[in-house]
Formats: sequence, C-alpha cells, structure tokens
Amino acid sequence: MVRVRVADTDLMGIVHHAKYLTYFEVGRVEYLRRRGVSYARCVQEQVYFPVVDLNVRYHKPARFDDRLVVETWTDKLMAYSVRFAYRIQRMGAAGLDTLAQGFTRHGCVDGAGQIRRIPTEIVGRLAGQEILHRPDDQV
Amino acid sequence: MVRVRVADTDLMGIVHHAKYLTYFEVGRVEYLRRRGVSYARCVQEQVYFPVVDLNVRYHKPARFDDRLVVETWTDKLMAYSVRFAYRIQRMGAAGLDTLAQGFTRHGCVDGAGQIRRIPTEIVGRLAGQEILHRPDDQV
Amino acid sequence: MVRVRVADTDLMGIVHHAKYLTYFEVGRVEYLRRRGVSYARCVQEQVYFPVVDLNVRYHKPARFDDRLVVETWTDKLMAYSVRFAYRIQRMGAAGLDTLAQGFTRHGCVDGAGQIRRIPTEIVGRLAGQEILHRPDDQV
Amino acid sequence: MVRVRVADTDLMGIVHHAKYLTYFEVGRVEYLRRRGVSYARCVQEQVYFPVVDLNVRYHKPARFDDRLVVETWTDKLMAYSVRFAYRIQRMGAAGLDTLAQGFTRHGCVDGAGQIRRIPTEIVGRLAGQEILHRPDDQV
Repeated sequence: MVRVRVADTDLMGIVHHAKYLTYFEVGRVEYLRRRGVSYARCVQEQVYFPVVDLNVRYHKPARFDDRLVVETWTDKLMAYSVRFAYRIQRMGAAGLDTLAQGFTRHGCVDGAGQIRRIPTEIVGRLAGQEILHRPDDQV
Repeated sequence: MVRVRVADTDLMGIVHHAKYLTYFEVGRVEYLRRRGVSYARCVQEQVYFPVVDLNVRYHKPARFDDRLVVETWTDKLMAYSVRFAYRIQRMGAAGLDTLAQGFTRHGCVDGAGQIRRIPTEIVGRLAGQEILHRPDDQV
Repeated sequence: MVRVRVADTDLMGIVHHAKYLTYFEVGRVEYLRRRGVSYARCVQEQVYFPVVDLNVRYHKPARFDDRLVVETWTDKLMAYSVRFAYRIQRMGAAGLDTLAQGFTRHGCVDGAGQIRRIPTEIVGRLAGQEILHRPDDQV
Repeated sequence: MVRVRVADTDLMGIVHHAKYLTYFEVGRVEYLRRRGVSYARCVQEQVYFPVVDLNVRYHKPARFDDRLVVETWTDKLMAYSVRFAYRIQRMGAAGLDTLAQGFTRHGCVDGAGQIRRIPTEIVGRLAGQEILHRPDDQV
C-alpha cells in the first residue's frame, strides 16, 4: 500500500503525473521481493534494470492521503528485457477504484552500463507469471 | 536548455526515468510561451491540462550536469484534448544526441475538475503547428 | 515505516538529502493522525501549515530499500506556529540506528495564504505532547 | 536563474519546501563552476560532498513560473567540511524579492564513503570568498 504524500501533489491539488512512476517502482520492487528477487541485492551485484520504454494511462486523479494499491505483474519476459505492467487502485469505503494503468519495459545492464542477459535465477523466478496473473482481465 | 541536477540522478548514476517527464514539462511550458500561451495565466484562470496518457522511450541515459534540449511540438489537437510530442537531446562537442522521445496527452478541465473544451484562443495558437514542425522526421 | 525507493537515491548511491524532508512529512502526517488530527481534512477546510523554518542534521546515509522509522513529536506549540521535531532511524538486525534528526516550524494560514491562529481543536490535541514524548533523550 | 516548474508545487499552490534544497543545489553547482570547480569532474574522480547539516528559512512562497535568482557563497571553509550559504530571490517588475535563505554544510568523502580532506585545488578556489562576498549584508 502506498499512501499519497503532500510532496506528491501539485498546484492542481492532485498527484503530479510523474509520481505514478514512483508508485509503479514501489509496486515493482515489492512484486520482485514476493517472487524472491531482491532488487537491493541486484544493485549490490551491479545488475541494473534501467527503463527503456514506458506508458501510463490516467483514469481518475489520486489525491493527498489516498491509500493506493499497486498491482504489478510480469507482462513480457525476454532474454535481454522484461516488461512489467501495473494497475493503481484507490482503497475506498466502497472498494477499489482504478486510477491508472501502465507498463515499464526494462533492459538489463551491468555496472559499466553494458547490456547483458537477465540472470537465469531471475528469469526462473519471473517465468510463467504472465500466465498466472492477469489483473487486466478483471477491469 | 535544461541542466541535469544531482537530485535528478539515482543510484545507477544516471537520470531517473521519472525525471524525463519533468523535462517534458519544462519543454511544454516554454513551447506554449513561445506560441503565446502562458500556462501560469491558465492556472490563474483555473484552466488546467492534466495528463491522461503518456509514453516515453529511452535511447541513451542522461547524466549529471548534461545540458539537454527539449524539443516540443503539438502532435494532435482535438476539441477536448491535446497531445504534445517531445525529443530530448544532449548538447555535446559533436552536436546533438537524441536521448529520449515521447508524448503526453492532456485533457482540459476547469477548477472543479470538470472536462471542458480547450479555450478557443489556445486552439488558435496551437492549430497548424503539427504540420509546420515535425522534429521526428529528422531522427 | 518508510521504505527507501530508488527514486530517493542519487549518484552517490545514497538517499538525496532533500528526500529526508519528505520522510519528515510522512512522519508528521502519521503523528498528527495518531493525535486525532487529519491533515487531509485540514486541507479540505483550507487550513494549511506551510514550513517557515527547518533544520536537518545527517549522521549516516540511508540507502535503497532501507526500512526507516520516523519518530515525530511536537517540539514547541505557539498560537500561530508549531514546531515538530524528528528522528529518522534505520531498522536493522542489530536494532535501530539513528541516521538523521531535525525540525520543521510551521505557520498556519487560510486558503488565501493569510496567517491565522492554529484551530483550538488542533492545539488541544497537540498541547502537552512536548512534555510526554522526548525521543531526543534516548539518543 | 531557476524557473519554477509545476512539479515543484504542491496542493497549497506554492513551491513545496523540499524543492528549495534543489534550488540551493543549482545555485551551488553554478557557483562552483564560476569559481573554477566542476562538480561533474569531482563526481568522475569520486570526490563527493554529502550534506551533513542544513537550514532553510522561508519568508515568502515561490509560485509556478516564478524566475528565481539563487545567490550562493562560501560561508565557512574548513579542512574536512565546507558550508555554503544561499539567498533565493524572485525576479519581478519591481526588482528582487527575498523568498528564502539558508545554508548547507558538506563533508568530503571518497568513493568508499570515507571522510577525506577537501582537495587542495578546491580549497584554493574557495578560500577568501567568504570575505569578498556577503549578500546577507544587503538584506
């Protein structure tokens, strides 16, 4: 769960559109942790996943103090890149309300910034997930 | 011209992907100013342009202290929404180097957050621009 | 508890110093909630608490994925301003480790930005707290 | 000159207090450049200046699209640390208007995060500046 901060809002009184990428990031890191992948350990071992492509579609604005659920899943897994998809929902008295959706595609690079294959262990932990978990179907 | 700040970078030593949206924003506000539209005045008059859809493709990383040129143009102009496109280039000794490209699509809302037509004056200042200016052709 | 995000770090590989103010903000909003003050409701009623003075002292760097505890307490309560103090600690296997300390002093303004007295109800909920809770003594 | 971005503002319609530290950073990097110190080169050579202590006092709020001048000077220069002071002013039709003041004190560390002396060359470029330049006197 992500709680919207004052610093996330802008003069429109709603969350600035760039902040949703940070919410995606929170969802991605937690999703990886649940799948047995520590991104902190990746960083220590200089295996990085820079974003190469992304999309966000905004349906309704998030506001200060909203409690957001960030659903994350593996959308497409390739040898050298992986695409994660996201759905951000607001927790409310009447249930969940979809605010935004999107994806981020990531390459895999080493400490020198050179493209490398995604480590086999990570592939193993993410493979098959795109079939098991498709929140998009529920929208 | 946008100069990359330390605060824009992350632990990879490159600019965090979310910051490019802020660079797009700088490009958009300056582009509008050149076309005779003050976004500050829009805000005073409670005419807002929240983002409803966006895409960014990252080609090469920007780094601290880089000088970036943010090209902006009107990509698609409709009665209730407008799409701006962007190309971010790094200024270097050997000329300009394309780092990222993307678009943001904006609705138009009033102070109460209700969808409204884009003011006629703004339409007039942006119309036809998509034909005159197509940096994408140069890539 | 605040989990450090990639977006919070900079090229030094540690959390950028400005982000601690956002952690203070998280601590402050949660502290107020526990004391019965909803800052979201303040915002709805156009009672704002802009920062007029602040200080941060950094002892050790926070890093990506660290779990931080933000202790907050009322440091000084006046008719027109309130000062909150903070201590940020990292949760580790060996217990808590103090990373940073500081304070923020806030004025109270209405929707037009005019200085006003802090609402009596809020004063009542914060008064006396500065005596009961002094985490600084424990350092 | 720093132009305030929409992303710098919050739900109060003014610049979020944490952003002033980023403005200080812009002022500091430009000040160092004028004194012959490239912070980008420091980063390449793994000489870093993490913040160890800071203070900001806010007089008047900055708003979207404001043009800000960030005056920076060396406040205190020691063997292992340096303190920079700042004054942020808004450019207006009637001249400059002071919005905020503050300081940041920085240690000097190497790539492993170990404290080290400030390089002699940098000391030479900053020494004596605290006497020559005292914007505070003009307030």
